Amino acid sequence: MEKQLQLNSRKNKLKFSVTVTLKKDVLDPQGKVVKNTLINLGMNNLKSIRQGKYFEIEIDANDESKAEESIDKMCKKLLANLIIEDYTVKKIS
Amino acid sequence: MEKQLQLNSRKNKLKFSVTVTLKKDVLDPQGKVVKNTLINLGMNNLKSIRQGKYFEIEIDANDESKAEESIDKMCKKLLANLIIEDYTVKKIS
Repeated sequence: MEKQLQLNSRKNKLKFSVTVTLKKDVLDPQGKVVKNTLINLGMNNLKSIRQGKYFEIEIDANDESKAEESIDKMCKKLLANLIIEDYTVKKIS
Repeated sequence: MEKQLQLNSRKNKLKFSVTVTLKKDVLDPQGKVVKNTLINLGMNNLKSIRQGKYFEIEIDANDESKAEESIDKMCKKLLANLIIEDYTVKKIS
């Protein structure tokens, strides 16, 4: 019974983080504005800043590899533009 | 000489990642739109998705704690709105 509950809670709780960043050679105008603003605020030791997107995703799945597959599909279909962006997926819990 | 070069390269290369997420109880309309879109794309096992911001910041500093202080200041002054957002800083390299 205890085990069943654990399995259920595990099934409902696969949580991943997805970080989407621009590829190295892609210009980042948004990051540039942030950089200029920070320098105007007196942060002289700032060398570079690049902005990306971050997602926390919870998946209903009892199988980790299946969940990761789903996340991968989401990234490819919607979250990241693979022409100009890279993404990394990490399991949180 | 070798050591000097190493020190220099270390000085120019402190890199941090900053993740800004909405606090738990703050509504995330952008995340909701992404969630609905993904469900319309056929991702039925998606339970929840929350969107945040991600920054990669390079700092000119030879002292890690000083660099982290700078990053903290940047987050408080510009990158995160502490009323509705939390942030986490991690050293990348």
